[in-house]
Amino acid sequence: MSTISVAVSVPSPAEDCEQLRKAFQGWGTNEGLIISILAHRSAAQRRQIRDAYAQAHSEDLLKALDKELTRDFEKAVLLWILDPPERDAVLANEALKKWSPGNRALIEIAVTRTADEMFAVRRAYQGRFKRSLEEDVAAHTNGDFRKLLVPLVSSYRYEGPEVNASLAKSEAKILHEKINEKAYGHEEIIRILTTRSKAQLFATFNDYNNGFGHPINKDLKSDPKDDFLFALRAIMRCIICPERYLEKVIRLAINKMGTDECALTRVITTRAEVNMKHIKEIYYKRNSVRLDHALKKDTTGDYEDFLVALIGQDA
Amino acid sequence: MSTISVAVSVPSPAEDCEQLRKAFQGWGTNEGLIISILAHRSAAQRRQIRDAYAQAHSEDLLKALDKELTRDFEKAVLLWILDPPERDAVLANEALKKWSPGNRALIEIAVTRTADEMFAVRRAYQGRFKRSLEEDVAAHTNGDFRKLLVPLVSSYRYEGPEVNASLAKSEAKILHEKINEKAYGHEEIIRILTTRSKAQLFATFNDYNNGFGHPINKDLKSDPKDDFLFALRAIMRCIICPERYLEKVIRLAINKMGTDECALTRVITTRAEVNMKHIKEIYYKRNSVRLDHALKKDTTGDYEDFLVALIGQDA
Repeated sequence: MSTISVAVSVPSPAEDCEQLRKAFQGWGTNEGLIISILAHRSAAQRRQIRDAYAQAHSEDLLKALDKELTRDFEKAVLLWILDPPERDAVLANEALKKWSPGNRALIEIAVTRTADEMFAVRRAYQGRFKRSLEEDVAAHTNGDFRKLLVPLVSSYRYEGPEVNASLAKSEAKILHEKINEKAYGHEEIIRILTTRSKAQLFATFNDYNNGFGHPINKDLKSDPKDDFLFALRAIMRCIICPERYLEKVIRLAINKMGTDECALTRVITTRAEVNMKHIKEIYYKRNSVRLDHALKKDTTGDYEDFLVALIGQDA
Repeated sequence: MSTISVAVSVPSPAEDCEQLRKAFQGWGTNEGLIISILAHRSAAQRRQIRDAYAQAHSEDLLKALDKELTRDFEKAVLLWILDPPERDAVLANEALKKWSPGNRALIEIAVTRTADEMFAVRRAYQGRFKRSLEEDVAAHTNGDFRKLLVPLVSSYRYEGPEVNASLAKSEAKILHEKINEKAYGHEEIIRILTTRSKAQLFATFNDYNNGFGHPINKDLKSDPKDDFLFALRAIMRCIICPERYLEKVIRLAINKMGTDECALTRVITTRAEVNMKHIKEIYYKRNSVRLDHALKKDTTGDYEDFLVALIGQDA
């Protein structure tokens, strides 16, 4: 569920544009006014504001905001303004441009989105970058990561509830064998994780747990510092419970020496209108601190105000 | 361009259904009447007939045709009746169920369709088979073929005209190196062929030809009986000129000892409304025989009449 609060009756897009224009004018920018508008409009309403602004002022609202805002606050607002598939495409592209084996943004996007959402991301990626997402993934990564990430971003998983029980059993066995052999980059592991439906993988992971006495994730912890093992675990966690996974991304971003604003902004701007309420609940259970309180302690100024507006101030 | 002839004014779908119903009734089936209707309706019109038939007779037209027709004629009509993405999904599934390294139907479908058409096929595949296409490809193939075919059916190629000339040059060099080393299943060959846009690949193949003095296809003929080399050449030929490739599929299907009805039916039912006119022209140039004459010589009965109706009797 969404955590942004949108009034039942909001001003027209033209009125919002006028207010934004006012916020940009004179000495200094009125960031509070910008937040009071943009953080309280749905994706469809923000799209209308962007269209109305372009028509009224012959300038992309993104450009105007880019001139007025700075640093983490700017980055968060610019991401927030984008349509969801375009936003994910931008995040995926950023992840690829500075790609390192420790980067998990691509996995987060590819696995927590639905099949149709992910296809919309691929389409938006082409529109914006004039190349295909899988082409850039293949060109920027290598080795086992390439073998894993290209099919991961290219898959269009079946989302029906059907589960093949004997297949789950046989593939749990394959996964166990390959993990036992420490053949973590084996094509069978990659095939199973990147092509099977999430319902099917649930059954496979359950069979693994029942048959071999411990969760598959535990068996992938032989070397906690191995980035590829971490990537495999991240995929599994995103499949098993995306909210729990994203809570951990936020928790680590906050607990880090020096907040990881990049991860914080990514998860909050992309999930605020999707399942942030659930993520917040898990955060509270796990940390005994409300997420808005944690954010207030860890961030400052307009960036703080904006993130808190997006996640809401309720428990 | 399409080769089927559709009258400017056709009977209503309900009238067509009544005529089809008549063709099914009494002693024996009136195949001529069936052909005179179905071979002369566009995909959209056939869809309307199918819907009207289901409504009027509480039976899927496919089921009714299945009861009335037999053998190659039946198979061709049943494929023809399907919506194009569903038809390709059925053909891909058939290819996978009896998959062998010599099977080229999957490559033909994955490479000659546009990116959006191929995505519609993947969606139709899930609707019909309750699994993803790439999942079935991964499960039914192995070795180098799996490494090649999974990304081939999963890719959503960029279709813009932009070409990166220096990239074309460097990737032509990579292809040449790997082919020289006989490392045909190398991940770089597969990455380039399955992720780059067709416009980019054109430039790469041209650079290959200019830089190394012979077409890339020629360099992949070291072992004419190697199915994997054949598959790579088929992909390249489908990219360079799909009509020329499909002409060859038809030519070989006809020239074979015992016609290959499977290939003949596949190419004609899937391409009649797309680019069959062009394929026919190439066929005539290459064989000095009109395709409809060749078909009449090589096939018989209702099957012959149906195929000839689909490709038209003009030169």
